Amino acid sequence: MVRLRLDLSYDGTAFAGWARQPGLRTVQGTVEQALAQILSLAEPPATTCAGRTDAGVHARGQVAHVDVAAAPDIATLARGLRGVLPDDVALRDVRLAPAGFDARFSAVARTYRYVICDDPRDFDPLRRHEIVRHGRRLDLDAMNAAAEPLLGEHDFAALCRPREGGTTIRELLGLLWSRSSDGLAEMTASADAFCHSMVRALVGALVPVGDGRQGVDWPAEVVRARVRDSRVTVMPANGLVLEEVHYPAEDELAMRQSVTRARRDGG
Amino acid sequence: MVRLRLDLSYDGTAFAGWARQPGLRTVQGTVEQALAQILSLAEPPATTCAGRTDAGVHARGQVAHVDVAAAPDIATLARGLRGVLPDDVALRDVRLAPAGFDARFSAVARTYRYVICDDPRDFDPLRRHEIVRHGRRLDLDAMNAAAEPLLGEHDFAALCRPREGGTTIRELLGLLWSRSSDGLAEMTASADAFCHSMVRALVGALVPVGDGRQGVDWPAEVVRARVRDSRVTVMPANGLVLEEVHYPAEDELAMRQSVTRARRDGG
Repeated sequence: MVRLRLDLSYDGTAFAGWARQPGLRTVQGTVEQALAQILSLAEPPATTCAGRTDAGVHARGQVAHVDVAAAPDIATLARGLRGVLPDDVALRDVRLAPAGFDARFSAVARTYRYVICDDPRDFDPLRRHEIVRHGRRLDLDAMNAAAEPLLGEHDFAALCRPREGGTTIRELLGLLWSRSSDGLAEMTASADAFCHSMVRALVGALVPVGDGRQGVDWPAEVVRARVRDSRVTVMPANGLVLEEVHYPAEDELAMRQSVTRARRDGG
Repeated sequence: MVRLRLDLSYDGTAFAGWARQPGLRTVQGTVEQALAQILSLAEPPATTCAGRTDAGVHARGQVAHVDVAAAPDIATLARGLRGVLPDDVALRDVRLAPAGFDARFSAVARTYRYVICDDPRDFDPLRRHEIVRHGRRLDLDAMNAAAEPLLGEHDFAALCRPREGGTTIRELLGLLWSRSSDGLAEMTASADAFCHSMVRALVGALVPVGDGRQGVDWPAEVVRARVRDSRVTVMPANGLVLEEVHYPAEDELAMRQSVTRARRDGG
C-alpha cells in the first residue's frame, strides 16, 4: 500500500459538505468517485481529510489522504483527476505522502477565514457565494478585543455542536479581524482543531460586539459558561473557507505519528 | 430634470451583456426595471453607461447615468434599488451627478482586468466564473515586452470588431501583466476607450507570446497591419472585468462637457 496526499479546493455551495452521505452530493463522495474512475478501482477508495467542512462551507486548502495498492504515475493521475472532477472541485496537488503522514492526525493546526460585507457599497456580486452580508457596520477593533481572552486553550463547549464522547477543549492559536483592501471584514482564525460549527459560532459571538449589541466582555462570558448559549448565532456557512492545514516538517512526521490527540476538525 | 450617477458591479455570467435587448436578460434592462419599480415610473427610464460590456463580461466599477423628473431622496432610493436588484447586480452607489456629467462622454479612461490561471495547482473553484484557464505556463515579462509598442495612440482596427462608421483609433494608456499573490496571471489595461472586443483581442494577441507560440514582436506587427487577423483569438468573456471608469474632477466636468470624442466603449 502507498499513501497519497491530495490538496483540494472547492466551492461548497452545491455540496452537502465534505462527508460522504448516501444519496447526497458531497465533496468526499465526488473525490472518491474520481479516484475510482482514474485508478480503475471496483469500489471508491476511502479518503480521510483534515477538516470535515459542513454543507456550504468552502475550502482553498483542504488536505486528504487515500491509500492505494500500488504507486501510480503521479503526473498521469493528476491529469486524469483534473479531467473528471467537476468545475467546483479543484485538485491543487497530489503526491506520495511522506512516511507517517495522516491528513487528519498529523495536522497540527487549521486556518479558516470568514468574510462579511458590512457596507452595501463594498458588495462584490462576483464573490457573493463566499461573502455574508451584515446590515450594520462592524467595529473590528472591538471584535479583536473581544477575541483576545478566547486565545489559548479553553473548553469551547458553549460554541460547539455537541457530539457524544468528544472533548470540546481546543487551543485557539490566533484570531484576527482585518479590513481587506476592498472594504470587507475578514477574520482569520487558527486552532489545533475546531469542533463542529465552532468557527461560525465564534463569528456569531463576535459580530454582536462589532455592531454594538453586546459588550466587549460578552464572548468570553459565553465561553466561560461552557454551555450552548441560544444568543449566539451560528453564522451562515457560505462565509467560511478552510484556507490552510498545517503539518510538521517531514522528518518530524514519522516521529510524532499518532501522538496528537485524535480529533476530528469540523470548523 | 435631474441626473443621477449610478455605480454598479455585476457578475456577467447570467447576462446577455450590458445593452438592453428584447427578450434577453441584460444588466441595463435589469437596472432600468429596478429604477422604474422604485421610482414608480410607467416606463423604464433610459440609462447610459461608460462601458457597454459584452455577454459574460463582469464589472466592479461600471458607471451609468439616468435622468429623472425630480430629485429623489437618495438614501431611500439606494435602499429601494438594493432591495429589488437581483443577487448578481450590486448598486455600489447612487448620487446626484455633478453639473455636466455624462457617464459615457465625460469618461476620460476605462480600466479593465483580465485573469488567467496558467497552472492547475493555482485554480480557485470559488473564482471559476472570473478566471480563464490556459494549458501552458505564461511568461509575463515577454507579454509585457510585447505590449510596450502598443502603448499610446494607434489604429487598433486589427483588434476591433468592425462597426460601421466608428473610428478604431484608441489611446492605450497602460497595460501590465503581473503575477497575483495566488499565482494568477492578471492583466490591467487602461485606455481612453476600448472598441468592441478589443481587450479580449489584446489578450488573445499577447497570450501566444507568453506561451512561446509567437515572438515578442508579433502583436505590434498584427496591429500595424490594421486588418483583423484570424490568428488572434478573442479570449473568453468570463475572464474580463470592467474595474474602473475615470472622470475628471467635478470643477473640470462642466467646462470640458462634450469636448471628448463621442466614443462608445465596448471593452
